[in-house]
Amino acid sequence: MKPDIIRIAQAIFTVSDLNASREFYVDLLGMNVLHEEKDALYLRGVEDREWTLKLEQCGEGETPRVRHLGYRVRDEQALDALVGLADEQKLPHRWEEELDRPRMLRLQDPFGIPVAFYHDVKTHPWLLQNYHQHRGPGLQRVDHCNVRVPDVKATLDWYCAELGFRVSEYTVDEQDAYWAAWIQRRGGVHDFALTNGAGPCLHHWAYWMPDAMSIIRTCDILAGARMPERIERGPGRHGVSNAFFLYVRDPDGHRIELYTSDYITVDPDFEPIRWLRDDPRRQTLWGAKTPRSWFEEASPMEAFGGGIQPAREGLLTGIPVHVI
Amino acid sequence: MKPDIIRIAQAIFTVSDLNASREFYVDLLGMNVLHEEKDALYLRGVEDREWTLKLEQCGEGETPRVRHLGYRVRDEQALDALVGLADEQKLPHRWEEELDRPRMLRLQDPFGIPVAFYHDVKTHPWLLQNYHQHRGPGLQRVDHCNVRVPDVKATLDWYCAELGFRVSEYTVDEQDAYWAAWIQRRGGVHDFALTNGAGPCLHHWAYWMPDAMSIIRTCDILAGARMPERIERGPGRHGVSNAFFLYVRDPDGHRIELYTSDYITVDPDFEPIRWLRDDPRRQTLWGAKTPRSWFEEASPMEAFGGGIQPAREGLLTGIPVHVI
Amino acid sequence: MKPDIIRIAQAIFTVSDLNASREFYVDLLGMNVLHEEKDALYLRGVEDREWTLKLEQCGEGETPRVRHLGYRVRDEQALDALVGLADEQKLPHRWEEELDRPRMLRLQDPFGIPVAFYHDVKTHPWLLQNYHQHRGPGLQRVDHCNVRVPDVKATLDWYCAELGFRVSEYTVDEQDAYWAAWIQRRGGVHDFALTNGAGPCLHHWAYWMPDAMSIIRTCDILAGARMPERIERGPGRHGVSNAFFLYVRDPDGHRIELYTSDYITVDPDFEPIRWLRDDPRRQTLWGAKTPRSWFEEASPMEAFGGGIQPAREGLLTGIPVHVI
Amino acid sequence: MKPDIIRIAQAIFTVSDLNASREFYVDLLGMNVLHEEKDALYLRGVEDREWTLKLEQCGEGETPRVRHLGYRVRDEQALDALVGLADEQKLPHRWEEELDRPRMLRLQDPFGIPVAFYHDVKTHPWLLQNYHQHRGPGLQRVDHCNVRVPDVKATLDWYCAELGFRVSEYTVDEQDAYWAAWIQRRGGVHDFALTNGAGPCLHHWAYWMPDAMSIIRTCDILAGARMPERIERGPGRHGVSNAFFLYVRDPDGHRIELYTSDYITVDPDFEPIRWLRDDPRRQTLWGAKTPRSWFEEASPMEAFGGGIQPAREGLLTGIPVHVI
Ligand SMILES: [Ca+2]
Ligand SMILES: [Fe+2]
Ligand SMILES: [Fe+2]
Ligand SMILES: [Fe+2]
Ligand SMILES: [Fe+2]
Repeated sequence: MKPDIIRIAQAIFTVSDLNASREFYVDLLGMNVLHEEKDALYLRGVEDREWTLKLEQCGEGETPRVRHLGYRVRDEQALDALVGLADEQKLPHRWEEELDRPRMLRLQDPFGIPVAFYHDVKTHPWLLQNYHQHRGPGLQRVDHCNVRVPDVKATLDWYCAELGFRVSEYTVDEQDAYWAAWIQRRGGVHDFALTNGAGPCLHHWAYWMPDAMSIIRTCDILAGARMPERIERGPGRHGVSNAFFLYVRDPDGHRIELYTSDYITVDPDFEPIRWLRDDPRRQTLWGAKTPRSWFEEASPMEAFGGGIQPAREGLLTGIPVHVI
Repeated sequence: MKPDIIRIAQAIFTVSDLNASREFYVDLLGMNVLHEEKDALYLRGVEDREWTLKLEQCGEGETPRVRHLGYRVRDEQALDALVGLADEQKLPHRWEEELDRPRMLRLQDPFGIPVAFYHDVKTHPWLLQNYHQHRGPGLQRVDHCNVRVPDVKATLDWYCAELGFRVSEYTVDEQDAYWAAWIQRRGGVHDFALTNGAGPCLHHWAYWMPDAMSIIRTCDILAGARMPERIERGPGRHGVSNAFFLYVRDPDGHRIELYTSDYITVDPDFEPIRWLRDDPRRQTLWGAKTPRSWFEEASPMEAFGGGIQPAREGLLTGIPVHVI
Repeated sequence: MKPDIIRIAQAIFTVSDLNASREFYVDLLGMNVLHEEKDALYLRGVEDREWTLKLEQCGEGETPRVRHLGYRVRDEQALDALVGLADEQKLPHRWEEELDRPRMLRLQDPFGIPVAFYHDVKTHPWLLQNYHQHRGPGLQRVDHCNVRVPDVKATLDWYCAELGFRVSEYTVDEQDAYWAAWIQRRGGVHDFALTNGAGPCLHHWAYWMPDAMSIIRTCDILAGARMPERIERGPGRHGVSNAFFLYVRDPDGHRIELYTSDYITVDPDFEPIRWLRDDPRRQTLWGAKTPRSWFEEASPMEAFGGGIQPAREGLLTGIPVHVI
Repeated sequence: MKPDIIRIAQAIFTVSDLNASREFYVDLLGMNVLHEEKDALYLRGVEDREWTLKLEQCGEGETPRVRHLGYRVRDEQALDALVGLADEQKLPHRWEEELDRPRMLRLQDPFGIPVAFYHDVKTHPWLLQNYHQHRGPGLQRVDHCNVRVPDVKATLDWYCAELGFRVSEYTVDEQDAYWAAWIQRRGGVHDFALTNGAGPCLHHWAYWMPDAMSIIRTCDILAGARMPERIERGPGRHGVSNAFFLYVRDPDGHRIELYTSDYITVDPDFEPIRWLRDDPRRQTLWGAKTPRSWFEEASPMEAFGGGIQPAREGLLTGIPVHVI
């Protein structure tokens, strides 16, 4: 039986200066501090009942990285099934724990992506209706992650076959090869997106926003703080997903997407939407071009044994023509 | 095995003057006509790939009513399971068909609510990204239905036990008796809500909106057309569901809710939220009182054998104190 | 020559508990403290270059009141002209000063309203583009005041004849008597509104908001803080002015309107818009009824010699039918 | 006495294909047709009580151009004063008429810009509260024009000295030479903007929008109609003016700005805001770069005697560094 994965649920980033990160995530983006330790901050959106982004101070001279991406699973059987899968496919795995999550299965998928799975979690009252406590643009809940991988098709096939993901949209190049894919467990557009390129690297980590105006306010806030350079791309409407979006970069270059207003994918006959890589409306429905950094920069990921997972080049070369 | 129900998906209303209804739903609310017949209109929101509201001209002197509420199911096995359930519980049922839905199981639930279930449906390209064709406030997709029933607890228990619904929120009176409940299959706040009162009657049929501003625009449009009296309640923010909402009444009094921005309920440890009936923030978080008509008026439902399903009084008497 | 009055610019309220007022205006509405004294707070919106609302702690047992409404004038000649007018019409007047305003002409108009006029003012850098410092809904700038007076027509005639105000909209009752009027100097819909009733009393003091969504957020914030009762009326769209609005009450009952999106009135052939008092769309374009408190409660105003200006009954009796 | 100019009020464009223009302005932007003739359309926003943009079919082979920019003046004396000015400064001028405007003074300013002034105009009921008739994004009223001129300082000095304009913001280059200026009569940020470059050419013609979301909807509508290439720049927040904006290009390349949410400038001590040309936040507060076409393309203007006014090069060379 396949493990029943509920949704993407958490990420852990290491950062070179926790105070600078706090200024960005807490003072400007208005994320909520659920817990604080000497060298770590546990953050969440106003709808999140648990921390969804942990920031850890990294060691002197260490490269900031993504320690893992974490999924919530339905029950302990799902964890058993994942251990079975890891054993069968000889995927490196071990049990770990984090604050509020006593039992997390950390494994490395066949493509080198560090993932964690957990069922048991201590939850906390949400802040959703405590509007007087919302600050900044009011990030709402974790929405999805996007990983740059060398072989989009192989990766997506594995997640669909072994973990029960379903494709909502995908992009092909002129040879009909998969350039990107958006896959989901939760009935939205995606929990996990894959983009062709050197990797595995985290391309971005995304939060759902209350509406487009809260995304506009994020731009105003960053500009008000004289940090317009933190705004990398957008705001705009995606062709893929139809969501309204903004990409910002944290002080270490980790990329955060603010995202809202996509659609639901629960119907059994839902047909994945196909895009051509060079369709001008694919990335931004309005035809806006994407800055080159958006294609070229991404966060390294932690290897199972420590250190950074070495990146392999993407199978497909070239980038979409709508780049500046 | 329980039937796997995907989501609430369609309703059929009869109306006394199809032209008046068309003006309301199409010209003012901007719903999209997918099909048109001499005596019927098949409408949808911009994200809907199928019709989600059918309006039928009713006969001379007939009372406008709700013919059924329809759910999409995962597969033919779900329909088999439903037939099994109907046989076992001696629920009246038969096969029906509608345009684009060749095989619909129509049954009457134990509480007299006419429901239909279907798997097979002909879908059509959506209009989601055809923004130049959106009109009026741009209703997006069917979201939920709300039925007034005499015994909220019995009804909700049956839907949870037999059809696998899960409770997201509920309201109790001062004796801790269930006054209302919100139950779901799709991972949102609800596909189906139950409110104490004479019934079964449809309290309202709801569409998801792109954002709060599109709901504000609906008010402006109805006022612009000199029909402010079609606006019954709102706009406002619900305490229950946290959604931004508006209730409008069509020319026959059928109530439509425009609704946006609730939250997700997919987590396995999601704990239903409990409200007291007379909490001022329950119905409208901002404390606004609800007009009496909202409690007292609802649409009759069609009996299995034709005619109108007789209504029984609600088990609980009285209405919330926040009424005007 | 008529005094050249630029715009409504400031108000001074006395309050019974400055800390409670601070919580309301600063912590919840997000107004900005420009200066602070032991017994006074000087507040402004993000576009205001000067304080626009001063709150003064009132003495033990004193009734909170409005000390004056203040207008900015073009130059010292305007002040001379006002002194001339006051002398000629025997209006009580004297020179006063306030922080940042060294020379303010305080007078009592023929209807007992305490008004102040100033030209010279120390301004401060605005906060308009310091979006990272905006808090709460982000009140933008002072927009208008609304005073309840016994004789709307006489009051409006005097302001137009002596101070050069122009009428943008007005309301008449079934005998064609003036029930309310909106008059302006600045080219917007109004600096000053007059409503029939016992007075003079300040009905409300209004701030311009960035957009309708910031007004919606105000409701959410007050509800989040468990103070829904501070929301008295709205949100909604006015028929008069076409503005989107919300009325809230401060801890002493002083009424604040948040207001946005009206229209311009600069054209020389602008024709005042006439409304019937009982038109359902006049107060709220959407037909919503107005709570009785909105008609019955208002803030007393300070008499020229100290104490509270006695109120006379309104010439017209009765209130609009759209009341609850 | 200086002529009392109220505000920028109208423009006349010639277009190469009136049907294509109609599709753009009426079907997509949702502008309202006030009058229609065989070879001309008279358009307005929902708040405009008169036509504000006239489109004329141009002759075979003619280059589409701007026939004039028109200002509303306070009275006939203002027209007399303008004739006096034109006589004194030997500015070419004549009386013209247009539909609804029987007596328009057409003159050519010292910089070759074709301007018209009128007092008398037939007005029509506005559509502001006829929300059910608004289409597309709902353009509200004419806001300003922007002209590219060779000598910004000389032009702005003349408009201020002779026509009573006041400066709200201006941009200087590294030698402190004027690169751009925003000047106004109406109490807003500008009726008229000047940008250094070859000219005189119309850079853009701007409409006020109800809010930022209506500007976002414009992008969605143009993208929905598969015309993303009509979107040239934005949406974004201007540093100058603080307005939310979008620039679109009509089928002949005439540039339209949609603009909302600036600030007021009525105070007598208002101090113009100074920007450096290469400040990254000046053009778009969020730091977004401007496409090169925005600097290089503009609409030719009609010469007084017919034909196109020859353009002279801008005094300052180079363009802002934030260009792509
Ligand atoms: Ca909005
Ligand atoms: Fe994403
Ligand atoms: Fe509902
Ligand atoms: Fe007001
Ligand atoms: Fe402009």
